[in-house]
Amino acid sequence: MHITVLRDDLLNGVGPIQAVVETKRSLPILSHLLLETSSSHLSVFGTDLDIGVRKRIPGEVVKEGSIALSARKLYEIVRELPATSLDLIVDDELTATITCGHSEFKIKGLPRNDFPSMREPQQRGIVLDRRLFRDLIRRTLFAVSSDQTRYTLNGILFRVTSSDVKMVATDGHRLAMASSGLSVTNSESPATIDVIIPRKAAAETLKLLRDEPGDVAIEISDNHLLLHTDDTLIDARLIEGQFPNYEQVIPANATKEVAVNREAFIAALRRTSTVLGERALPTTMKLTPGKLVLTCVNLDLGEARDRLDVEYQHEEMSIGFNARYILDFLGVLTTDQAIIRLQDPLSPALFTSKDDTQYACVIMPMRL
Amino acid sequence: MHITVLRDDLLNGVGPIQAVVETKRSLPILSHLLLETSSSHLSVFGTDLDIGVRKRIPGEVVKEGSIALSARKLYEIVRELPATSLDLIVDDELTATITCGHSEFKIKGLPRNDFPSMREPQQRGIVLDRRLFRDLIRRTLFAVSSDQTRYTLNGILFRVTSSDVKMVATDGHRLAMASSGLSVTNSESPATIDVIIPRKAAAETLKLLRDEPGDVAIEISDNHLLLHTDDTLIDARLIEGQFPNYEQVIPANATKEVAVNREAFIAALRRTSTVLGERALPTTMKLTPGKLVLTCVNLDLGEARDRLDVEYQHEEMSIGFNARYILDFLGVLTTDQAIIRLQDPLSPALFTSKDDTQYACVIMPMRL
Repeated sequence: MHITVLRDDLLNGVGPIQAVVETKRSLPILSHLLLETSSSHLSVFGTDLDIGVRKRIPGEVVKEGSIALSARKLYEIVRELPATSLDLIVDDELTATITCGHSEFKIKGLPRNDFPSMREPQQRGIVLDRRLFRDLIRRTLFAVSSDQTRYTLNGILFRVTSSDVKMVATDGHRLAMASSGLSVTNSESPATIDVIIPRKAAAETLKLLRDEPGDVAIEISDNHLLLHTDDTLIDARLIEGQFPNYEQVIPANATKEVAVNREAFIAALRRTSTVLGERALPTTMKLTPGKLVLTCVNLDLGEARDRLDVEYQHEEMSIGFNARYILDFLGVLTTDQAIIRLQDPLSPALFTSKDDTQYACVIMPMRL
Repeated sequence: MHITVLRDDLLNGVGPIQAVVETKRSLPILSHLLLETSSSHLSVFGTDLDIGVRKRIPGEVVKEGSIALSARKLYEIVRELPATSLDLIVDDELTATITCGHSEFKIKGLPRNDFPSMREPQQRGIVLDRRLFRDLIRRTLFAVSSDQTRYTLNGILFRVTSSDVKMVATDGHRLAMASSGLSVTNSESPATIDVIIPRKAAAETLKLLRDEPGDVAIEISDNHLLLHTDDTLIDARLIEGQFPNYEQVIPANATKEVAVNREAFIAALRRTSTVLGERALPTTMKLTPGKLVLTCVNLDLGEARDRLDVEYQHEEMSIGFNARYILDFLGVLTTDQAIIRLQDPLSPALFTSKDDTQYACVIMPMRL
């Protein structure tokens, strides 16, 4: 095997994939990346058996071939190389020689037949706008449950119908749901998708799909999700099981509306939370017409109070929340104003925004 | 107690001092900062019993007083406050109220009489340029030994004579020495100083003394080092004992000179080191007239080779070093070129530079 590639291209391929690979698995081959030539490309493939990722890197193939190299070592070497072109040559004893300028590296590899295989896309899924897909993940990922006994909540529900695309995640205390009108760009036979994407696969997808204009092809095969762009293929095992019926928790009678400036709300929540330390104590929101007073009390340490001007026209109400949940929501909101819809101090509240009806969080209040 | 200060001033005082304070000590008072008014200042003081630091912050004193507050909590609160003025009021029950804009915090404190006391400077030491003092620390700190059984090597030798100021540190494998002609600015009775500053005190001093023009007053009292600037007082316990006679390890017959570009040398050492992983294997430097070839061999993984153009006019020689030690030296060097003076592959080498005769490292070679 012999291929000439640009160091920056190789780094762009090896960097994100080596982050997916687990170095502490019992199977040594899983800490490796498979490098393989194909026509005018080098393909780089890594997997932790739950998520596999393959990237194609443009290159000049002098001699076809393949080799598995330590992901971590390859990354550390390529990162230190100057930004120029490099040659990767593999001999019959599976020693890879990388030459770049005045530098030369020889590292031992493993044969490709030890490497797990990857599903190939069948070109019969749907195609979505890549940024939309990333955005749906970004707006729901934080609400995924870490409670391993509730395994269907350890991922994001991804549902595509003939009319819309939706992601939902919940940990039982809060729920995030993001949707979009159908911007599926191909749809000869409009596929219905209803799957649960595990947290790690969703998080890695955010990193692997660049935040640039373009599409992503999506298909489901044998309880695996295949994501495909020009140069990247992601193959992620899905969570089996039924996502709970989340629609029943969306409050129907939350009619008391509060409009609050997003940045001022974030600053005040962060400030008042400082006295709580690691304790999961409530932040009390006391609403009176035009005013919101936030209070945190921690008997061990002290108390904090902050006041904000808000739009609110209803009777006085005090309601408690975990500030962390509100901050997670505000952190991904892109509008200047946040809208809170309340019913009473014991009922779930709806956090959303005026301009963007396609995103909302339901947050359970804490008893005061 | 009641004082008005600017939030930014308070943050500049509390931030660096809370980093010195240890939060896991058995004495709760040591996780606190003592805040105390004095004429038109707020003084903030923290200590871990080995290092005490006091900073003066300008403020408007409404009522004199003092209180000890949790260092971590105070820092977290002040960090989140808007950049405006704030009021700190302490009542008779030792509850501190901080008000700033629409925000109000109440936190409980401890009385000042529980707090350890600090040495006061007697104004009879020497005065050095602050940047020079920082620079001497920065150029030697990395060579301090971590071997706790050799406690006199766990710090930096700081020696002032009538003709020069010097710092030296060694861990037995390498030695760093930085000196300066005497720029002591006061010297009625030119004091002689010969002490060992512990690693933590030296490292914290680097952070606490701003990298700005100005002086630092230095005095030794009861085996304590007192450093004093306009607004900061540092009181550090010194290491007792005799620093070894380091002068005998400075090579006298290292006459074969190599001149190498600093940046290219750093890049090549970092690149070739990648194949070594965590193992302390030598980097081989093979010198021939005009050329330096670096080689690293790790039987577990592979090998790396790099080539540099250098100025070298002597016979071929191969010598091995721990690349980490050379990189530490190159990292603090400010000249474009590094000079290496060699005797033979088994003798210590002198790493220095052409323009700066006041800084050098002695590094022991590794057997190849």
